[in-house]
Amino acid sequence: MAYVNENYLKLPGSYLFADIGRKVNAFKKDNPEADIIRLGIGDVTIPLVPAVIEAIHKATDEMSKPETFRGYSPEQGYDFLIEKIITHDYNSLGIEFSNDEIFISDGAKSDTANMQEIFGADNIVAVTDPVYPVYVDSNAMAGRLGEYDSNEGKWTNLVYLPCTAENGFIPSLPEKKVDMIYLCYPNNPTGTTLTKDQLKKWVDYARDNKAVILFDGAYEAYITQPDIPHSIYEIDGAKEVAIEFRSFSKNAAFTGTRCAYTVVPKELKGYTKSGDVVDMNKLWNRRTSTKFNGVSYIVQKGAEAVYSEEGQKQISEVIAFYMENARIIREGLTSMGLKVFGGVNSPYVWLKTPEGYDSWQFFDKLLKEVYVVGTPGVGFGPSGERYFRLTAFGSRENTKEAIERIKSLKF
Amino acid sequence: MAYVNENYLKLPGSYLFADIGRKVNAFKKDNPEADIIRLGIGDVTIPLVPAVIEAIHKATDEMSKPETFRGYSPEQGYDFLIEKIITHDYNSLGIEFSNDEIFISDGAKSDTANMQEIFGADNIVAVTDPVYPVYVDSNAMAGRLGEYDSNEGKWTNLVYLPCTAENGFIPSLPEKKVDMIYLCYPNNPTGTTLTKDQLKKWVDYARDNKAVILFDGAYEAYITQPDIPHSIYEIDGAKEVAIEFRSFSKNAAFTGTRCAYTVVPKELKGYTKSGDVVDMNKLWNRRTSTKFNGVSYIVQKGAEAVYSEEGQKQISEVIAFYMENARIIREGLTSMGLKVFGGVNSPYVWLKTPEGYDSWQFFDKLLKEVYVVGTPGVGFGPSGERYFRLTAFGSRENTKEAIERIKSLKF
Repeated sequence: MAYVNENYLKLPGSYLFADIGRKVNAFKKDNPEADIIRLGIGDVTIPLVPAVIEAIHKATDEMSKPETFRGYSPEQGYDFLIEKIITHDYNSLGIEFSNDEIFISDGAKSDTANMQEIFGADNIVAVTDPVYPVYVDSNAMAGRLGEYDSNEGKWTNLVYLPCTAENGFIPSLPEKKVDMIYLCYPNNPTGTTLTKDQLKKWVDYARDNKAVILFDGAYEAYITQPDIPHSIYEIDGAKEVAIEFRSFSKNAAFTGTRCAYTVVPKELKGYTKSGDVVDMNKLWNRRTSTKFNGVSYIVQKGAEAVYSEEGQKQISEVIAFYMENARIIREGLTSMGLKVFGGVNSPYVWLKTPEGYDSWQFFDKLLKEVYVVGTPGVGFGPSGERYFRLTAFGSRENTKEAIERIKSLKF
Repeated sequence: MAYVNENYLKLPGSYLFADIGRKVNAFKKDNPEADIIRLGIGDVTIPLVPAVIEAIHKATDEMSKPETFRGYSPEQGYDFLIEKIITHDYNSLGIEFSNDEIFISDGAKSDTANMQEIFGADNIVAVTDPVYPVYVDSNAMAGRLGEYDSNEGKWTNLVYLPCTAENGFIPSLPEKKVDMIYLCYPNNPTGTTLTKDQLKKWVDYARDNKAVILFDGAYEAYITQPDIPHSIYEIDGAKEVAIEFRSFSKNAAFTGTRCAYTVVPKELKGYTKSGDVVDMNKLWNRRTSTKFNGVSYIVQKGAEAVYSEEGQKQISEVIAFYMENARIIREGLTSMGLKVFGGVNSPYVWLKTPEGYDSWQFFDKLLKEVYVVGTPGVGFGPSGERYFRLTAFGSRENTKEAIERIKSLKF
C-alpha cells in the first residue's frame, strides 16, 4: 500500500498568497469597477534590462547551430557565470571562493526549500518571526517541526525568534539550543537589516554550538547604508557555519526568468550522530548532481550579462527606481502618523497597523475602501500580527496613487 | 549541533557519469591525440529546431517591454503550454485531463527525483534492474532503501526486478509486496519496451495492492512500432495508480534548455497509516507551490512551439535522424556477431558484451583501443553486468565512424 508523507497533512490551510488571491478575486467579482492596485506579492514590474535581453537573444542563436548548441549544463552551473559571481559579488568584498563552492540554480525558493534535505531529521530549527514561509513549510514537510498548533499559529518543535518594533527587529539568541538557523537580511518581510556586529553574534553562536546558518541574501542589492553586510562571509569565521542564498529575481527582474545561486563553502561542517565531521559542500554537490540537471543555458547567459558594465549600470537604475518608490511609501505613511520600518535597505516597507486593526482587518480596509492590496503581516508568522507589508515593486504612478488613497483613510 | 542526513553517507561512490568522465579525462591526458567519439551519456547533438528558436526570441522580446513582461509564472506552469500538452499528447490517445493535473517543470530528472518526497518513508520501492540511477539514489537519500551492500551492488531494502536477455527484458511481478514501482518505457538503459498487455499486468498489480507506479515516458517520441503504449494512461484504470513523467529533452533537444512535465491524476490515491485515502494530486501541488517557482517564461514559450505544425514537423525529422543512427549501430554490431537489443523504439542500443568481458572491461577496451566512449551496463544496476549502452544521439559521421572502429576490434 502506497503510504503518503503524513507531514504534508499537518500543514495549515493554504499558502498565504493564495488566500490573498482568493479574497481579492471575490472582491473584484462583487466590485468589477474597482481599480485595484497591488503592492502585495514581491514580484517585479520593470522588464529585463537591455544587456540581459541581448545576451539571451545571442545565446538563443547559439542554440540554433550545431557548432554552438549546448546540451546538458554542468548540474552546478557554467563556470562563465560562477566566475563572474565570485569576482563581482565576493572578491569585491575581499572574500575568496573556488568555483565548486558556488551552485547555480533555478531560484532561491528552490534552494532555500531543498537545502534542509542534507540535514538530519531531528535538528532543531530556528526562524525569525515573521518569516518567509518557505523555510518553515519545507522543514514541516520533512517532519522536523512537530505538530502545528492552530491556536498559537505555531509549530511545536520550531524555535521562533520574534522580531518586532519592541526589539528593533533584532532577533535575540535562542534560549534553547538550536542547530539550523534561517536568517534573511535585508529581511523579507520586515525590510530591516542587521549590522555587522549584530550578525557577528549569530556567527559566533553558530560556531560555539556547531550550528549552521542558512542566510538568505536575496535582497542584498537594495542595501544603501554603510555597515550593513552584503554577505554573511564578511563576518570572520562564517565560512565554517553559513550557507548563503542569492538570487537574480529582485535585482535583475528574473522572477519569471529563473536564476539564483547558493554558496556552500568547503569549510562548512556538519556532524554525524557518532561525532564524525562531514563536509557539507560534498553533500549539496551530491544532491545537486543527483536531483537537478542545471539551469537553462540561455538563462545562465542572461544572468552573466547582469555583471557586464552595461548590465550593472542598467540594473542599478532599476534598483534606484524601486527605492524611490520605497521612499514615497515610507514618507507618505509616516506623514499620516503610521509607524513604518524598512524601505531604506530593502524594497519592503513594514508598517504597524493603526490601533484597533489587526493584520487582516487592515488588509480588508485597504482592499474594500481604497482598492489597495498589501500583505497581512500575520501571514508571515505570529509576531507579524498587527503589521502589514507593502512592496516598492509597483509602477511610480500606482505607488503614488496607492499612498494618496491610503492617506485618505480615517482610522 | 547540525547533524547531517546520514543516508547520504550510505551512497556508493560517485555518480556513474562522473566516473566515466574521470576515466575519459585521464585517458585524454595520456593520449592527447586520440580522437574520442562519445556515445555514452544520453545528450543530444542536433540544435533546437527553428520553431522553438523563433518562439524563444519572440518571448525574449516580450520580456523586454513593460506591457508584455512576465514576472513569476504559476508554479505549476502556464495554461498555454498545459493545454497544448493535454490536446496533443493525451486527447490524441483518447485520454482526458484537466489543466491542474499537469505540472510543468525544469526536467524529468528533478521530477523523478523529487516525487518520492510526497510518499511515506517506509514504503517498499521496486525498480527494474538495470535502471536510471536517479530513482534509486533519490530514495536512498530519503532513507527508504536500507543499507548498500557493495559486494552485491544492491540496497538491502530495494526490490530489484531483473531485466535481461533471459526474460526478454520483461520484468516479473515481485514476490514481495511493493508500494512504489518505477517503470521507464521505452526503457533507459536497455532501449526495450512493454506491450499494452505487459504494462497492463503492472497496472493491475498496482490496483490490487494499492501501489503507485512512477512511469517515466521520457523516450515516448521514439516509439515506432504499433501496440507499444505511448502513455501508461492508455491502460484502463491507470489514472488511479500511476504518475507519468515526460520531457522535452530527448524529443525536442531541451537537454540544455530545461523543460518537462509530470501528470498526477486527480484519481491517484495514497493512504495514511490509519487507512485514510489521500488525494496525491493535492500533495504534489503543495510540494510544487512551496518548493518551486515555475519554469522560465521564455522556456515555456519554446516548449509550446514544439506543438505547432512546424515544430512537430521539425522535431519528427530530428527523431528520424537519430533513429537512423540507432539502425546503423544496431545493424553494425549485429553484423559482427554481437547480441543487440533496443534501438527500435528507443535511441538506446543495449548490447551483450563479448565472452570474457565484463561491462567495465568492455568500456576500457573501446576507450583505449578505438577511442569510443559508451556506458558500462553494470553502472545501471547488477543485472546490467556484461551489458553496454550506446546512444544514437551522435552525429551521423561519428556514429558511422564509431561502429566501423568497433567492428575492427578482435574479441
